[in-house]
Amino acid sequence: MKLMEDRIRQDGRIREGGVLKVDSFLNHQMDVELFNEIGKEFLRLFGDCAVTKILTIEASGIGIACVSAQFFHVPVIFAKKNKTRNIAGDVYTSKVESFTHGKVYDIIVSKEFLHPEDRVLLIDDFLANGSALQGLIKLVEDAGATLVGAGICIEKAFQPGGDLIRSMGVRVESLARIKSMSVEDGVTFC
Amino acid sequence: MKLMEDRIRQDGRIREGGVLKVDSFLNHQMDVELFNEIGKEFLRLFGDCAVTKILTIEASGIGIACVSAQFFHVPVIFAKKNKTRNIAGDVYTSKVESFTHGKVYDIIVSKEFLHPEDRVLLIDDFLANGSALQGLIKLVEDAGATLVGAGICIEKAFQPGGDLIRSMGVRVESLARIKSMSVEDGVTFC
Repeated sequence: MKLMEDRIRQDGRIREGGVLKVDSFLNHQMDVELFNEIGKEFLRLFGDCAVTKILTIEASGIGIACVSAQFFHVPVIFAKKNKTRNIAGDVYTSKVESFTHGKVYDIIVSKEFLHPEDRVLLIDDFLANGSALQGLIKLVEDAGATLVGAGICIEKAFQPGGDLIRSMGVRVESLARIKSMSVEDGVTFC
Repeated sequence: MKLMEDRIRQDGRIREGGVLKVDSFLNHQMDVELFNEIGKEFLRLFGDCAVTKILTIEASGIGIACVSAQFFHVPVIFAKKNKTRNIAGDVYTSKVESFTHGKVYDIIVSKEFLHPEDRVLLIDDFLANGSALQGLIKLVEDAGATLVGAGICIEKAFQPGGDLIRSMGVRVESLARIKSMSVEDGVTFC
């Protein structure tokens, strides 16, 4: 999606250690007009897949998922990062490793909201190592629902997540795929 | 807002200890069509206030804020619950007490995204003790920006937050104000 690539070139900032900061438009301050175009593009890609639910993960996926869901006319569920030790039996749960924060945490979705007849589209802002996406995929599998695919805003294609998830047979559509980036040379897209 | 009250009556579930569960449509599974109506109502209430930014707090405020922001044509910023001990000098910060989780945490907003010329509308799903809203108000004040008011989906009017915030001179508009609720008698609105 040219609009996303252009925006990353214009407003993304590269930090040492493979960090791409897009917090001026994607995941801290959020450009909702851009989210609208993102939603239209996800509809173009997945509009014929009979999606019944969009699933994302807190926090930065929620805005993109909600604006996109307007085009699909389906509800959004966000997987919660679990804060309590006691997980009741009425939730699906999986583990996600955060490389940024260097820890593993549980994510949960209430069993009430994911059913075997659901056709689920995953939406998230970033795909890098793929841990969050794998966690969401497990929730969908545990519910016995059908996974339609994953719509990602920015994929760091130089990290293993995209290949890993695609090798599982999951359709992954990334609006911008970064081939390489460095403070010196900027961003190159696939 | 009748639509909100009706939805709470229909799908809200009351638990012991003053807990109102609205996770089937507001803060876990999210009914984006409802969010659209919420956004229109916030526009009706605050549309003449020359809002330049909408500020919310992660996680459950984000979806409502983003869908609402489409009507205002302004960006959303979400205050992040701080996960790291080191707070850099480039953020505004304040403290929020979570009664649900029984702890105090820091919230942060990057100084890049809140400026003295901004006119800020706060949006959140719940107002009960008012701690989250007070935290957000402090961020706006620290930035020297103008606080236009707060748009709240559900106010527990039997808890002190609403009175407290209004007594500070802040305009608070709640789409549903709960006067009382109990497992036996259900919900009564103001």
